Amino acid sequence: MNDFIYLSDLFGTIVFAISGALAAGRLRMDPFGVLVLAGVTAVGGGTVRDAVLGATPVFWITDTTYVWLICLTAAAMMLLVRCPRKLSGRWFQVADAFGLAVFTVIGAQKALSYGAEPVIAVMMGTMTGVLGGLIRDVLCREVPLVLRTEIYATACIVGGIVYTGCLSLELAQIPAMVLAMIATLTLRLVAIFYHLSLPAFALDSDNKR
Amino acid sequence: MNDFIYLSDLFGTIVFAISGALAAGRLRMDPFGVLVLAGVTAVGGGTVRDAVLGATPVFWITDTTYVWLICLTAAAMMLLVRCPRKLSGRWFQVADAFGLAVFTVIGAQKALSYGAEPVIAVMMGTMTGVLGGLIRDVLCREVPLVLRTEIYATACIVGGIVYTGCLSLELAQIPAMVLAMIATLTLRLVAIFYHLSLPAFALDSDNKR
Amino acid sequence: MNDFIYLSDLFGTIVFAISGALAAGRLRMDPFGVLVLAGVTAVGGGTVRDAVLGATPVFWITDTTYVWLICLTAAAMMLLVRCPRKLSGRWFQVADAFGLAVFTVIGAQKALSYGAEPVIAVMMGTMTGVLGGLIRDVLCREVPLVLRTEIYATACIVGGIVYTGCLSLELAQIPAMVLAMIATLTLRLVAIFYHLSLPAFALDSDNKR
Repeated sequence: MNDFIYLSDLFGTIVFAISGALAAGRLRMDPFGVLVLAGVTAVGGGTVRDAVLGATPVFWITDTTYVWLICLTAAAMMLLVRCPRKLSGRWFQVADAFGLAVFTVIGAQKALSYGAEPVIAVMMGTMTGVLGGLIRDVLCREVPLVLRTEIYATACIVGGIVYTGCLSLELAQIPAMVLAMIATLTLRLVAIFYHLSLPAFALDSDNKR
Repeated sequence: MNDFIYLSDLFGTIVFAISGALAAGRLRMDPFGVLVLAGVTAVGGGTVRDAVLGATPVFWITDTTYVWLICLTAAAMMLLVRCPRKLSGRWFQVADAFGLAVFTVIGAQKALSYGAEPVIAVMMGTMTGVLGGLIRDVLCREVPLVLRTEIYATACIVGGIVYTGCLSLELAQIPAMVLAMIATLTLRLVAIFYHLSLPAFALDSDNKR
Repeated sequence: MNDFIYLSDLFGTIVFAISGALAAGRLRMDPFGVLVLAGVTAVGGGTVRDAVLGATPVFWITDTTYVWLICLTAAAMMLLVRCPRKLSGRWFQVADAFGLAVFTVIGAQKALSYGAEPVIAVMMGTMTGVLGGLIRDVLCREVPLVLRTEIYATACIVGGIVYTGCLSLELAQIPAMVLAMIATLTLRLVAIFYHLSLPAFALDSDNKR
C-alpha cells in the first residue's frame, strides 16, 4: 500500500479509537471496556469486510500495528482525558471525516483486489467506514446513529462510486483514491457545517391510525 | 441450483428485505438505515452461515443479484409505501413463511455441500432462516422476537430435520427440498393461523423470592 | 489436543451454556431462545476467533460434540431448573471462572498455531473467554457486564500474557497452559471473593457542566 494511504489509515484508526473510548467513558466502563469499544470502532468494519471477503486472517492479525495503536490510544485517553468536550468539537468531527474517507477507499480497494464487482466494492467501502461505529452503538445500547441521521454513510457511498468510477475510466489507483477521499471528505464536511440530513423514511407504527 | 429454488430464494430475499425496511420506517431511519435494515434482514443469516462454513467470499459477493434486489426493494419501499398496515397483514406473513422455508433448505443444503454433519446442516438451515431477523431486532434495540414467541425457528428446525432425513433415506435433492419446504411452511402457517407458541422457560429473576 | 484440556473445554462449554440458558429464562424466552442463548454464550467467542483467523469451518462444525452438549444442557435446564438461585451462587461462579481460564488458553493456543504474534494470541484468548457472554448480553439488551465491572476480561489478558510468556521462555505447551489457567483462575477467584474491580473511566456526558 502507498505510504500516504497507510499513514492515513493509521490516523483514521486512532481517531475512530478515540471516538470509541469516549463512548465507553460516557457509560463509565472499566479499562477493558474502553479497550473493546476503541477496538471495535476502529477495526470492526474492516474485520467484517475481511471475514465476508475471505481475506483471513484479517488485516490486524497480519499487521499488529493496528492493535498496538488501539491499546496506546485507549491508554492515553484514560490517563489524559478528563474533559471530553475538548475532544468532541468541530476539529474532531473533521478528523473523523478524514478517517471515514480513507477507510472507505481502502475498503473499496480491498474488495476489488479480491475480484469483487464495483457494487460490492462500494458496499465494502461503506461497511469499512461505518460498521465499527454501528457496533459501538449497539454495544452502548443505542439505535445506531448512522442509521438515523446526517449524511454519513451517504458520503461513503458517494466516495465508493467515485473510486470505482475513476478506475473504470482507467485512472491510476492512487489518483482515484485521492479523488474519492476528497469527494467523501467534502460531502461529509458540508453535511457537518450545514447540518444536512437526508429525509427520514417515517412510518406510523402499526397500532396508530 | 435448481431454477425453482433459485427464484424462490430471490423471492424470499425481497420479502425479508421488505420486513427490514418496515422496521427501519417504524424507527424513522434515513435511506441508508432503510438499506442496511433491508440488507441485514435479507442476507444476514446466509452471511454468517457462509463465514462460519468458510464459504468465502460469501454468496452475495459472488452473485450480485441479491444486492441489487435489496437496493431496489428498499428504494421501492421508500417511494411507494406510506401505509405499512397493508404490508403487515396475513398475506405478508404467508410470504414471510415461504421465504423462511426456502432459506432453511438452502442453508441446510449449503452446509451439507461443505461436508457438515446433519445436525450442523439443521443448525445452518435455521441460522439462514432466522438470524437476519434477529440482527434486525438487535439493531432496532429490541429483544429479538424470534427468541421469545411463536413457532418460527421451530419450523426451521423441523424443516432441516425433514431435509436431512429425506436425504439419508436416499431421496433425491430436489424432492427432499420440496418436502422440507412444505413441512416448514405448513408448520409455520398453522402457528400463524392458530396462534401457537411453545411454552416459555420462565425463571424468576434472582432478586425475587 | 491434550485430554485434560479437551475435557476442561467441554466442561467450560456446559458452564457457559448454563449461564446463557439462565439469562434466557430470566427474559422468559421460548425453547429456541434458550438454545440460542446457551449456544452463543458457549461458542460465540470461539466462533468469532475462528472466523477472523480463517480457521474455517469453525471448531463446532468439525467436532459436533459441542453442539450436542449445548442442546443437552439447554434441554436439561428447561426440564430440571425451576429455582435459578441454586445455580447462581458462589460455586457456579467458580465453575465459570474455570471455564474462562480454559477458554483463554485454548484461544491463545489456536491463534499461535495459525502463526499469529503473541499480542494477537492474548487478544484471541480474551475474545474466546468473554465474547460469548458479551453477545448474550447484547441479545438480552443489556450493556455488556464485562465492559463495566469486575476483573473478568483482565483475568483473561493476564492468562494470555502468562501463556505466551511461558512459551517464549521455552516452556512446553501443556505446563504453560496449566500455569496460564492457574493465573487466570486465581485472579478471577480473588476478584470474586474480594469484590475487586478496576477503576472505571468515567466521563461526564457532553451535555452536563
